[in-house]
Amino acid sequence: MTIRVGIVGYGNLGRGVEASICQNPDMKLIAVFTRRNPDSLKTNDKSVKVLHVDKAREYVNDIDVLILCGGSATDLPVQGPYFSMFFNTVDSYDTHAKILEYSAAVNKSALANGKTAAISIGWDPGLFSMNRVLAEAVLPQGKEYTFWGRGVSQGHSDAVRRVNGVKNAVQYTVPVEKSLQKVRNGETPQLTTGEKHIRECFVVPEAEADKEKISHEIKSMPHYFNEYETSVTFITEEEFAKNHTGMPHGGFVIRSGQTGQDPVNNHIVEFSINLDSNPEFTASILVAYARAVYRLNCEGQIGAKTVFDIPLAYLSARTSEELLRELL
Amino acid sequence: MTIRVGIVGYGNLGRGVEASICQNPDMKLIAVFTRRNPDSLKTNDKSVKVLHVDKAREYVNDIDVLILCGGSATDLPVQGPYFSMFFNTVDSYDTHAKILEYSAAVNKSALANGKTAAISIGWDPGLFSMNRVLAEAVLPQGKEYTFWGRGVSQGHSDAVRRVNGVKNAVQYTVPVEKSLQKVRNGETPQLTTGEKHIRECFVVPEAEADKEKISHEIKSMPHYFNEYETSVTFITEEEFAKNHTGMPHGGFVIRSGQTGQDPVNNHIVEFSINLDSNPEFTASILVAYARAVYRLNCEGQIGAKTVFDIPLAYLSARTSEELLRELL
Repeated sequence: MTIRVGIVGYGNLGRGVEASICQNPDMKLIAVFTRRNPDSLKTNDKSVKVLHVDKAREYVNDIDVLILCGGSATDLPVQGPYFSMFFNTVDSYDTHAKILEYSAAVNKSALANGKTAAISIGWDPGLFSMNRVLAEAVLPQGKEYTFWGRGVSQGHSDAVRRVNGVKNAVQYTVPVEKSLQKVRNGETPQLTTGEKHIRECFVVPEAEADKEKISHEIKSMPHYFNEYETSVTFITEEEFAKNHTGMPHGGFVIRSGQTGQDPVNNHIVEFSINLDSNPEFTASILVAYARAVYRLNCEGQIGAKTVFDIPLAYLSARTSEELLRELL
Repeated sequence: MTIRVGIVGYGNLGRGVEASICQNPDMKLIAVFTRRNPDSLKTNDKSVKVLHVDKAREYVNDIDVLILCGGSATDLPVQGPYFSMFFNTVDSYDTHAKILEYSAAVNKSALANGKTAAISIGWDPGLFSMNRVLAEAVLPQGKEYTFWGRGVSQGHSDAVRRVNGVKNAVQYTVPVEKSLQKVRNGETPQLTTGEKHIRECFVVPEAEADKEKISHEIKSMPHYFNEYETSVTFITEEEFAKNHTGMPHGGFVIRSGQTGQDPVNNHIVEFSINLDSNPEFTASILVAYARAVYRLNCEGQIGAKTVFDIPLAYLSARTSEELLRELL
């Protein structure tokens, strides 16, 4: 049985999904749907159909799971509730403040139409959230810490690029090593935002731009930089192209908890990732959850689901017996 | 609604379960069942009943989940299938080679009697297994590594204590830092058992024992030590009592995986724990799964379940809405 997958949106994440499907022999990519002119897209596998997104509904009988690779700001709030009327879906909706609302909208569509939708899949929300829930359930008395990085923050890079005199720029969010160590030592420190992360900016200035002024403007930018230790390094366009076009990321979820009395015993539970390519890793998570969504739907488990609702066995290509024998 | 819990077996693990229940306001310990003379046991909370294990069946209506804290060698193979006829159960069965057989036996009892049984719960099998399945599902192309320690190995400590001239001893399993770093660097090394762990023995010798001989006998012990770099340190009884009676443990599950082509991107997914008290931490996991077992049974989800089958939401004391709002 092959799971037939469709992709909506062919940016970095969509391309990552295409690459990940190739690593999973139980899956097959049927079509990529785009808002652009389909002829303008080049997929890796030339046999994959590229179609305008308006054609997606014609493929309801040919696609088992549709992976939505649009953004959370404007694409998914429309696409999630819409496509879950016709398809089982997976998405990476990550606007934390609106997740309840989004979940309710998708759940309504999916339930009414017998579909299963995995929402807010990725690493944060996603794998990090799973570890927060697991570690808190096991160590209810304790404190949780999430650190992000070292990795590219799209939002902060955009903010730097908007500064006058900046030709190109990238911003790396970097966890403060000293604070990480305090947490790992079980000191359960109170950490301000500025004590958790530093911000490294690599900036290609326009010719004859005032570097002092750029640097000052970045470092004093409210919300984005003024509460952090921020470094600004000016580099050439060549250096930018050579060293700063990747999309690395990573992070740490650490719970420091206590059990027992007299003595109290300390425990550290840590989950971390270190990624060469944020979009390819995120895409690989979406694909594993596509497998889960397909299976859940076959069993009649419909509606919106998060990483908290889906048993791990559903993600794996292995049989239950193999899981018990080889991985338990 | 309070979940009423019973404990079978009051060793280190059973005492850890008692301590953990105190940290979970939705749970209450009803009774401890023991094979010893009940009057000889002192529970922390004096209001808890201590009864002979033969009385357990009289409590079927008073206990929602029974946590089995016996050993895997002889206790659980009998107790698991037996108690899951009458109670929802949680156990920490960890004889890897016989898990399928054990699972089948417990499943049969539980299914026939409408009970739910979480088997092989703990950190390995348990949390480590979950991370192996999750990371493999997300990064099917890659290699998985499990390192244990720094921590006390009961089996190896026992082996050392059996050596002639040894009065008392403890053995720590310690991951080889250099190998850990190679794995984290994405080098995906092939590691022999001896390259993964070293073994540190702290030995209190009998008066006038031949230390050279003891040391040689330990280091050349087949299977236990001869394949490892092993250190033997002789200490006094006082030092043993002061520094070596704790039960620390820990470990690392690391997957090193690749995505994409041209370039291939590397990713590291790592889960680690660092525990002051192995039994108290393991007990805390059993208690979280007791909550899950209770809820699954209320929903009619019966039979034997492992960590692969149980959604994380079932472990948490929080409502679904809280989980989405606070932890996703």
